[in-house]
Amino acid sequence: MVDVSEKALTARRAVAEGFVTVSAETLSLVIDGRTAKGDVLTVAEIAGVMGGKRTSELIPLCHPLSLTDLTVSVTPDRAAGGLRIRAEAATTGPTGVEMEALTAVSVTALTIYDMVKGVEKGVEIKGIHLVSKAGGKSGDWLRERPTGNRPARRAVGRAAGRVGPRPRKP
Amino acid sequence: MVDVSEKALTARRAVAEGFVTVSAETLSLVIDGRTAKGDVLTVAEIAGVMGGKRTSELIPLCHPLSLTDLTVSVTPDRAAGGLRIRAEAATTGPTGVEMEALTAVSVTALTIYDMVKGVEKGVEIKGIHLVSKAGGKSGDWLRERPTGNRPARRAVGRAAGRVGPRPRKP
Amino acid sequence: MVDVSEKALTARRAVAEGFVTVSAETLSLVIDGRTAKGDVLTVAEIAGVMGGKRTSELIPLCHPLSLTDLTVSVTPDRAAGGLRIRAEAATTGPTGVEMEALTAVSVTALTIYDMVKGVEKGVEIKGIHLVSKAGGKSGDWLRERPTGNRPARRAVGRAAGRVGPRPRKP
Amino acid sequence: MVDVSEKALTARRAVAEGFVTVSAETLSLVIDGRTAKGDVLTVAEIAGVMGGKRTSELIPLCHPLSLTDLTVSVTPDRAAGGLRIRAEAATTGPTGVEMEALTAVSVTALTIYDMVKGVEKGVEIKGIHLVSKAGGKSGDWLRERPTGNRPARRAVGRAAGRVGPRPRKP
Amino acid sequence: MVDVSEKALTARRAVAEGFVTVSAETLSLVIDGRTAKGDVLTVAEIAGVMGGKRTSELIPLCHPLSLTDLTVSVTPDRAAGGLRIRAEAATTGPTGVEMEALTAVSVTALTIYDMVKGVEKGVEIKGIHLVSKAGGKSGDWLRERPTGNRPARRAVGRAAGRVGPRPRKP
Amino acid sequence: MVDVSEKALTARRAVAEGFVTVSAETLSLVIDGRTAKGDVLTVAEIAGVMGGKRTSELIPLCHPLSLTDLTVSVTPDRAAGGLRIRAEAATTGPTGVEMEALTAVSVTALTIYDMVKGVEKGVEIKGIHLVSKAGGKSGDWLRERPTGNRPARRAVGRAAGRVGPRPRKP
Repeated sequence: MVDVSEKALTARRAVAEGFVTVSAETLSLVIDGRTAKGDVLTVAEIAGVMGGKRTSELIPLCHPLSLTDLTVSVTPDRAAGGLRIRAEAATTGPTGVEMEALTAVSVTALTIYDMVKGVEKGVEIKGIHLVSKAGGKSGDWLRERPTGNRPARRAVGRAAGRVGPRPRKP
Repeated sequence: MVDVSEKALTARRAVAEGFVTVSAETLSLVIDGRTAKGDVLTVAEIAGVMGGKRTSELIPLCHPLSLTDLTVSVTPDRAAGGLRIRAEAATTGPTGVEMEALTAVSVTALTIYDMVKGVEKGVEIKGIHLVSKAGGKSGDWLRERPTGNRPARRAVGRAAGRVGPRPRKP
Repeated sequence: MVDVSEKALTARRAVAEGFVTVSAETLSLVIDGRTAKGDVLTVAEIAGVMGGKRTSELIPLCHPLSLTDLTVSVTPDRAAGGLRIRAEAATTGPTGVEMEALTAVSVTALTIYDMVKGVEKGVEIKGIHLVSKAGGKSGDWLRERPTGNRPARRAVGRAAGRVGPRPRKP
Repeated sequence: MVDVSEKALTARRAVAEGFVTVSAETLSLVIDGRTAKGDVLTVAEIAGVMGGKRTSELIPLCHPLSLTDLTVSVTPDRAAGGLRIRAEAATTGPTGVEMEALTAVSVTALTIYDMVKGVEKGVEIKGIHLVSKAGGKSGDWLRERPTGNRPARRAVGRAAGRVGPRPRKP
Repeated sequence: MVDVSEKALTARRAVAEGFVTVSAETLSLVIDGRTAKGDVLTVAEIAGVMGGKRTSELIPLCHPLSLTDLTVSVTPDRAAGGLRIRAEAATTGPTGVEMEALTAVSVTALTIYDMVKGVEKGVEIKGIHLVSKAGGKSGDWLRERPTGNRPARRAVGRAAGRVGPRPRKP
Repeated sequence: MVDVSEKALTARRAVAEGFVTVSAETLSLVIDGRTAKGDVLTVAEIAGVMGGKRTSELIPLCHPLSLTDLTVSVTPDRAAGGLRIRAEAATTGPTGVEMEALTAVSVTALTIYDMVKGVEKGVEIKGIHLVSKAGGKSGDWLRERPTGNRPARRAVGRAAGRVGPRPRKP
C-alpha cells in the first residue's frame, strides 16, 4: 500500500456511476417488481452499500478506512435501455474514496445481473467510471461529459439519492 | 435464494469477460511493470481469483458453493486501447457459476483501476458479460459475438490462461 | 468442531423464528415505508439471508457448508406489537442447519433494530428459537407450541415466504 | 447509510444485554464445563467479541468504525433459568456503538445455543435490548427497568467484566 | 487455482503443528490463567479453529471447501520452553486440507502471541510444518522426525485433542 | 479487548519478519518463476498485505484499526536455504500494529507454502517474530539480534520494500 502515515486527515468524497443494459421486457419486470427473486432495485442498492464497505478486503492495495457516508441509487432508464447506478462515498481521512464508490457500483451491477439472469442471459455491465472526487492534496476532479449525455435526469424520481422506498410504477 | 435442494449435482462451468479502457501511456506503464504500485497484471489476476471466491458474500441471493476451478487472465490489447479480462469458473453442484466468473472479472477490473488511478483518473470499466455457460438443467449457452470482434487474439501471449509469470516486454 | 467425516450426506432443513417488539407508531412507520432509512422489511430480510450464509464464520464450532436454500420473511403483527421473523435453511450434507436458520433470524432482528433505532430506543428482540428440524440421524424435531399462539397467521399476506416485493398497506 | 461526515468525533459507549433460557440440567453442564463441545462461557464470550467487531459487515446501514473497547460477559443465573449476557462497546467517532453491543450479545447467544443444542433443542434467546448509551449529540440514554429485575447481581462473581478465566462452581 | 473438477471426492485428512517460544515466567502465567487478557489456551484454540475455516479467503489459490473436522490443541511444554500447537483438518472432497491445518496452527500461534505480548515482546513462532496427510491421489505422507523429538508427550493431559475444558494446574 | 478509549492517538509502526525453509531446487523454481502456480513472490506478498488488513478479524482481542501503511517483501536467500519475509505496518491510533505486521508475515509464509507444496512437502515456517516497534506510551522497542545474523542484506535487490515488480534472475 502507499504509505499515507504523513498525510493530513481531510474530508473526501467521490461519486461513481455505471450502467446495466437489459431488454425492455426485463426492465419492465424490474420496474414492476415482478422478477422471481424480488425487489431488484432495493436489493441491489443494499448489496452495493454492503460491498462498498468491504472495498479494502477486495482490492489488495486499498487502505481500510472509516466511511462516513455511502449511498447507492439505481434508476431505470427506458430510453437508454437499462438501469443507471450511482454511488457516493465520503470519509474524513488520509486517503480518497474513489475505490469505495466504484466497488459499490460494481457490486450493485452484479446483483442486478444475478436477479435478472433467470430471464435474460445477455445482460451487460458497462460505463463504470469515476464522476467526481473532492478533497485531498491532489484537489478536486470532475469527469468531462461527452455531448448528448443526460446527467440531469439520472436522479429523476428519487429525491434522496439513498436506499429507501420509492414510488412504484409512477 | 432459489431453493436448489432438489437439483442434481452436475459439472458446471462459466466464462465471463470484461475490459478496462486506459490511455496508451498507461498501458505502456502496465506492460513494462513501471507503475508505482507494482505488477498490475499479476496483482489484478490474484485479486480477481480471491474476489470470485467471495461471490456468495457479496451477492445477496447467490448460493455458497465449493468451486473446483477459478482462473483469471488479463491481456493488454493496444489496438483496443486497454486490458481484456477473462475469468473461468467451475463447480460440481446444484447451481451455476456465472456470478463467480462475473465477480472475478469485476474485482480484477477494479484492481486494475486502483493500481493505475494515480496516473490516470478517466479509466472506464466496460463490456462485462457472460461469454458461455455449460452444465445444469437449462443447458449450454454461448454469447453471440458482434461482427468484427477478435476473440481469437484475446489469449495471445499467454498459453496457460492462469495466474502466473509472463514474458515481459516481448 | 464435531467430526462429521463419517456421517452420511442427507437432505436437512431447519426453521427458526424470532420477534422484534416495537411501538404501534414505529410499526406504522415500518409498514408504510416511512422510516428515514428506507424499506425496513426488504433490507432486513436481505441482511438475514446474507448473515445466515456467514454462520460458520460467526459461530466458532459450526461447520462451513453449502446451503441449498435460505429464505427469510418478516411479517408485521399489530396484535402482538411487533414484527415476526421466520427463516428456513436447507442443505444436503453431513450436519444440520439449525444455526444457519437461527443466525439468519438474529441478523434480521438486528437490522430491524438498526433501522428503527432513530425513532425508538427501547426495542427488544425476543423469542428466537428453533421451530423444526428435519433430516439427519437424530430424526425430525418439532417445537411444542404453548396454547394461544397463532402460527397459522404468521405467513398471512406473503405467499412465497421469500424475500420479494409485497403489497403495501393492504 | 446516514451521512455522518459533518458530525463531531466524540467518545461513545453502549451497553446491551440478553438472555438464553436453558434447563437446569443444561445449566449445570455449562457451569461444570462438562458439555461435549467444551468451555461454553469462554467460547461464547470470544465469539461475541469477534462478532461485534464485524457489525458493519452484517448490518447493511451500519458505518464501519474503529472500536476502542468491546467486552462480553456471560453469567449463569440459576434463579432466572439460564445465562445472562452483557456486552459493552466504545469508540471515539461520529456515530454510536449500540449495534456493536447488540450484535456482540446476539452472536454470544447463538454460540451458547450451538454449544448446548446437542443436549437441549428447546433453548430460547430472549430479552436482547440496549441498556444504556452515552456520548453523541442525542445525549445519554438509560433503559427503565421493570420492578423486580436484579441488575446489581448480574456481574456477581466476575469483577473484570472481560473475557477471561473465572472460578468454576463457586 | 488448480482445476480439480475431474478429481474424485475422497476422504482427506491433514495434521500440522507449530511452536511458540515463551519465557518460563510467561508460560507460568498462561498455565495458571493469570494473563491480563484471559484464558490463553482456550482463546487461542478457538481462534485457530475459526482461522482455519477461513483458509480459502486468506490463501489466494486455495479452493473453498466444506470441512468435516477441524480441531486445535495447545499444550504447554516447560521442557521445550513454550507452547506446542497441533491442528487436524478433514474433508471429503477433491482437494487436500494441508493448508487448513497449517492456517489453523498459524492463527493459534498469532493469538497466543497477542495474548502474552503485554508481558513479553520477544516471543517467537517457529516449527510450523505438516506432520501427515492422508487421502487423495498422491497417497499418504508422514513427516520424518529428527531424533530426540518427543511426539508421544505432545498430547499429555488432553485426551480428546479438541477445544474443550481442561484440568487447570493439575 | 483492552479498553483503549482513553489512549492518545499517536503514530505507530511495527516491523516483523519470518522465514520459509525450502530445498535448493524449490528455491530455484521460485526465483525463476517456474512453479506450476505462478509468480510465488508477488502472489505471496499480495496475500500478506491482504491478510494483514484482516488481523482484527482473525485475532480475537485485536482492535480494528485504520492502517496507514502495510508493506511486505519476500527475498530469496540461498545461503540460508529459503525465503525471508519482512512486513512493516503503521497507523495513527490508540493501539499498536505488531499483530498486523506478524499476521502479514504469517499469511505470506502460508501462501509460499501453498504455492510450492506440489513440489516439496517438507517445507517449514520458522523465525516469526517482531523486529521493532515505535510509538505509543510504552516507547520504542528493538529486538536484539543474535551474533552472526545478517540483517543488512535482507533487503538486497529490492530498494522499495514494497510489493512490485523485481528484476528476475539477476
